[in-house]
Amino acid sequence: MTTSATSDFYAVIPAGGVGSRLWPLSRADEPKFLHDLAGTGNSLLVDTWNRLEPLAGENIVVVCGVAHKKTVRRELPELNKANLVLEPNPKDSTAAIALAAAIIARRNPDAIIGSFAADHVIADERRFGKAVREAIATAREGYIVTIGIRPTEASTAFGYIEIGEALAVDGAPHAHRAVTFTEKPKVEIATEYFDGDRHLWNAGMFIAKASVLLDELRANRPDVAGPIDAIADAWDTRDRDDVVAKNWKLIPTVAIDYAVAEPAAEHGRLAVIPGEFRWDDVGDFAALARLHNQGRSNVLATLGENTRVLNEGSSGVVVSQTKRLISVVGVKDIVIVDTDDALLVTNAANAQRVKNIVETIRRTGADDVL
Amino acid sequence: MTTSATSDFYAVIPAGGVGSRLWPLSRADEPKFLHDLAGTGNSLLVDTWNRLEPLAGENIVVVCGVAHKKTVRRELPELNKANLVLEPNPKDSTAAIALAAAIIARRNPDAIIGSFAADHVIADERRFGKAVREAIATAREGYIVTIGIRPTEASTAFGYIEIGEALAVDGAPHAHRAVTFTEKPKVEIATEYFDGDRHLWNAGMFIAKASVLLDELRANRPDVAGPIDAIADAWDTRDRDDVVAKNWKLIPTVAIDYAVAEPAAEHGRLAVIPGEFRWDDVGDFAALARLHNQGRSNVLATLGENTRVLNEGSSGVVVSQTKRLISVVGVKDIVIVDTDDALLVTNAANAQRVKNIVETIRRTGADDVL
Repeated sequence: MTTSATSDFYAVIPAGGVGSRLWPLSRADEPKFLHDLAGTGNSLLVDTWNRLEPLAGENIVVVCGVAHKKTVRRELPELNKANLVLEPNPKDSTAAIALAAAIIARRNPDAIIGSFAADHVIADERRFGKAVREAIATAREGYIVTIGIRPTEASTAFGYIEIGEALAVDGAPHAHRAVTFTEKPKVEIATEYFDGDRHLWNAGMFIAKASVLLDELRANRPDVAGPIDAIADAWDTRDRDDVVAKNWKLIPTVAIDYAVAEPAAEHGRLAVIPGEFRWDDVGDFAALARLHNQGRSNVLATLGENTRVLNEGSSGVVVSQTKRLISVVGVKDIVIVDTDDALLVTNAANAQRVKNIVETIRRTGADDVL
Repeated sequence: MTTSATSDFYAVIPAGGVGSRLWPLSRADEPKFLHDLAGTGNSLLVDTWNRLEPLAGENIVVVCGVAHKKTVRRELPELNKANLVLEPNPKDSTAAIALAAAIIARRNPDAIIGSFAADHVIADERRFGKAVREAIATAREGYIVTIGIRPTEASTAFGYIEIGEALAVDGAPHAHRAVTFTEKPKVEIATEYFDGDRHLWNAGMFIAKASVLLDELRANRPDVAGPIDAIADAWDTRDRDDVVAKNWKLIPTVAIDYAVAEPAAEHGRLAVIPGEFRWDDVGDFAALARLHNQGRSNVLATLGENTRVLNEGSSGVVVSQTKRLISVVGVKDIVIVDTDDALLVTNAANAQRVKNIVETIRRTGADDVL
């Protein structure tokens, strides 16, 4: 496949979300996407960039909060200044992706965009690239395309996409219609899906012609599309700041799954490419432990530079940002996150509850550590 | 009971032992007895002093390592300089107690000494005082006397003393002969002892005429008594340093249970007073958690000044010497010890294994944290 096949392709990286289930590693000023959770030596954001650069070249647009402008530019020195879209405040994925699509569409009416979260981990870049290229070919036919991940277990932590009939798309032998979207299911349903082989994990990847995505949004959610279009019209003009100030606050906060993907599925306009690569959203510390222990239940993984850990018969994960000696004795599935001003101790089974702690901290006003 | 009843009484406080099962709280330069483990606001050493002062007045002799001289003097400003006995290096309890006894015997041939560890916790000082007064009365009759603690559970963490026939001692209605000493038993034996009501915990408390204790030692262990007597003869002279330098290294390292108490029991010269007070040697972090949670299994105890702990459904104990926010989520019987240069995470069931970690650290030369 030649470069020309993807020359109208623009990658969009929404870099939003603190990842509060990963507190105290993730902080407001150092969110999840800035951390090296995969152990590659790079932040997840840089890994994401490196994964997309062979596909999109310099056509990579990053959407982040104004607070992270400097850090993102430092992490991504190759990022074209015109391709950094700053959100005054977070409005969930529809605003971020649709604004990027609307800006790109005005620069290139034939653009195909592909949106990929800044804070996910993907193991096999070759297979990822293959799936994206099939998704681009399918998007060219007017579909809104998602890449669904072949489940490796009956996870209740992810949403599922049901695969429909095969689509006859040139250059996309694995394209199928996507029939339904299901939220994180209960374990019985997840087991049924896993056994049934007709469901894929929703990894939040969307590929579509920018114009198609925006038309779908205009049809379903004119209340979102209206201010987005107003902002995009002004973006590359001197009126940008005024128009953003006036319109951003009007945008409803909604996930793209609801605003675009589900209606598109209902109308038969959603396609899915099965992704045969290892993917994880590293949603909590249990996921982080799984990622690094790779199914070995007796391993204590350690993350961090110059980490000093002494282990006697423990398993789980230790994340250290300090130089302290950390001794872990006989505790199973433990999660220890050691930072300068905050320490977290929990276990895999309770990893999702970390969010409650963050809410408690916010409520009690001790948010110097958030 | 008047002061005169105890006017020949000298309390001896051996302040030795790092308490390596309490690492990283206990350190070589800040051993267990310097910590406020009981939550009284005082170190265990000061608590011990305060408990003995009503019984012994200014006749309190503290035996500690040379390294702790300054700290002990700072903790105990009332300690008479002549009553601080410094050990060049640790030689276990026989050397510490017998040297104190030998020095005291030369100052007052009628002295009765009572030795009490510097790092135990006692809850009821009135009952403690009552038991010590009975022990003193019994010691006056020529017995070596121990105070045995009425067990509150079938503990395998303590040694046991078997009670024999009642002794007819004036002023000591509860004095009995002590028949045998048993090391920390297996759980079946401990259960038998606990059910049987003839066994008390060995709390390492010994009360005897100094002359009687020394004669017992001279009879059983002349190899220990010889250098001790030589040092004591020179102690209050200008030859002290020379004689210590020559003789201290000759003293065998042995616990007083073996060198004095067991032989005395065999020869019918050991007595026991049952102590009806709450006592704990706080030997590990499980004991520390028990002490502070008082049997409530769903409590997370916190020790330390200005400790900031957020708990969601955890139990156990958190000891903090830092100002960090410590969040503990859904972990049961957990032990977290948070210090500036070292962090320990374990649980009650593994608390004894902390000693292994300390050995590993020593072996690997990372002993800046010991």
